[in-house]
Amino acid sequence: MEPDKATIEQAAARIRPWLHNTPVLKSDAINRICGSEIWFKCENFQKAGAFKSRGATNAVFLLTEEELIRGVATHSSGNHAAALALAASRRGATAYIVMPENSNRLKIKAVKEYGGIITFCKPTLKAREDTLAEILMKTGAVEIHPYNNFNVITGQATAAMELLESIPNFEIVMAPVGGGGLLSGTALSARYFGRNIKVIAAEPAGADDAFRSFYGDVMVPSENPKTMADGLLTSLGSLTYPIIKKYVDQIVTVSEDGIREAMQLIWERMKIIIEPSSAVPLAAILEKKADVAGKKTGIILSGGNVDLTALPFK
Amino acid sequence: MEPDKATIEQAAARIRPWLHNTPVLKSDAINRICGSEIWFKCENFQKAGAFKSRGATNAVFLLTEEELIRGVATHSSGNHAAALALAASRRGATAYIVMPENSNRLKIKAVKEYGGIITFCKPTLKAREDTLAEILMKTGAVEIHPYNNFNVITGQATAAMELLESIPNFEIVMAPVGGGGLLSGTALSARYFGRNIKVIAAEPAGADDAFRSFYGDVMVPSENPKTMADGLLTSLGSLTYPIIKKYVDQIVTVSEDGIREAMQLIWERMKIIIEPSSAVPLAAILEKKADVAGKKTGIILSGGNVDLTALPFK
Repeated sequence: MEPDKATIEQAAARIRPWLHNTPVLKSDAINRICGSEIWFKCENFQKAGAFKSRGATNAVFLLTEEELIRGVATHSSGNHAAALALAASRRGATAYIVMPENSNRLKIKAVKEYGGIITFCKPTLKAREDTLAEILMKTGAVEIHPYNNFNVITGQATAAMELLESIPNFEIVMAPVGGGGLLSGTALSARYFGRNIKVIAAEPAGADDAFRSFYGDVMVPSENPKTMADGLLTSLGSLTYPIIKKYVDQIVTVSEDGIREAMQLIWERMKIIIEPSSAVPLAAILEKKADVAGKKTGIILSGGNVDLTALPFK
Repeated sequence: MEPDKATIEQAAARIRPWLHNTPVLKSDAINRICGSEIWFKCENFQKAGAFKSRGATNAVFLLTEEELIRGVATHSSGNHAAALALAASRRGATAYIVMPENSNRLKIKAVKEYGGIITFCKPTLKAREDTLAEILMKTGAVEIHPYNNFNVITGQATAAMELLESIPNFEIVMAPVGGGGLLSGTALSARYFGRNIKVIAAEPAGADDAFRSFYGDVMVPSENPKTMADGLLTSLGSLTYPIIKKYVDQIVTVSEDGIREAMQLIWERMKIIIEPSSAVPLAAILEKKADVAGKKTGIILSGGNVDLTALPFK
């Protein structure tokens, strides 16, 4: 069953001692360019640098001491890996992380820093799943999926909940979509904590499985996705897809140039560091795919983990 | 006469409607590394991206309508140029900006965006001064020097004043030093608004005129300064030097590697964009030139204007 309002409120209370209620910022320059009033929920300032800490922390803190004895496990090349390692460390539990051997070195460093135990594998979905299955078998750890898990979705929902609590009367809320954990949580919170809020998701054209699944009748997977927004390469899951289909109003796709320009605009004008995935909703506005003219709009900036020695700016 | 406490308080009230009371942030990771409690006053989020807006705004808003009729003028390759253009535009006045022809293209763009009228000159101090003298003669504009001006110093002092008002009981306050406008204002505010606060300035070893002037008996100019901290190339002035000599406790110098590492640490851990000049005080702590162990320390991050296509990270 999809999470209800009280479940999200309880999750917010559960994770509050461990995470940041991140700031909500605006930029006069960006508002002038877009012709609307945009507020950014800055999950780039979240613990471990991304909203992923919300879902991972909620899922880990819902486990009993007994369940935690054998640790938690996941496969992830990105922010969920570090978030889960950090959340597990808060409870003195072991986190087993399966990472593809070509993972970003900063992400690997972060997982190690939080005490996660890494097993590297070939960079294919099959190798990731097989390696994780082996570890689960061997250790008896509890799997915490990066998005296809209601406790994770509920945790991610707290970002939009905080956004809607901090600023009144939003008309539109936007989030990027990868596996759909953030988007489904955002859509639920928009419904529970807002009034007639339109939910618009943005996705890179090079990884448009959510767009195709949303406007089609069945969930289609990402095939050879290609985008600089490395947090959005994954496909929707069996739990996120129905929520998105039901509660999201629109999904639009954006170009790689659009993502880079939106990212640069936020860096230059707001002086904050966001990763490419975070720039996708603003790219949709700049490319006129999403119409927010004159509307009070909230955007969730999903994270800020980016390799400073390999930036896309021109 | 050096600005007194009431003058700084009046300046704060004067500029408040036009500028940000910038946030004061900390990083648990940086505190762990440094073994102290450090709070960063984020002038990188200030209007026009630097503390320079404080001094320029205070100076411009102290002019009468009559004085403003012929405009204001300065020579600057950097943040003061944009800050003065913005401040003048707020009062409907013209800002004449002399810029060396090799100025950073982003700084030129910012001055134009704020409506400043640029005159380019050869990149020497003599050419800058001669060109400005000519413009002052021709236009009758009021010169607003980037730092050797009490109204500017008073404006810059409001950054440390806000810092000390927002967090109690600082033991150390640090600022970078170039021409000394920020540092002399910071030293005055530490004296007026704090209790027994030690003021430590940090300067690139490649532009160490303030260090040499401070520990010597006379003011010595910068000669062929070389540093990536492009806001700190200038020499102290006749108004800033005596205040610094009197109220600053220590000046230390740092290496270019140290500046780059401190800058990268702030970008990676705090997810905020600062320019190299802003990183100089933290570099002094990391290089153990400034001892802040166990001490509650405030650092003024001077600005965030940096060319994203030419970053120093390795």
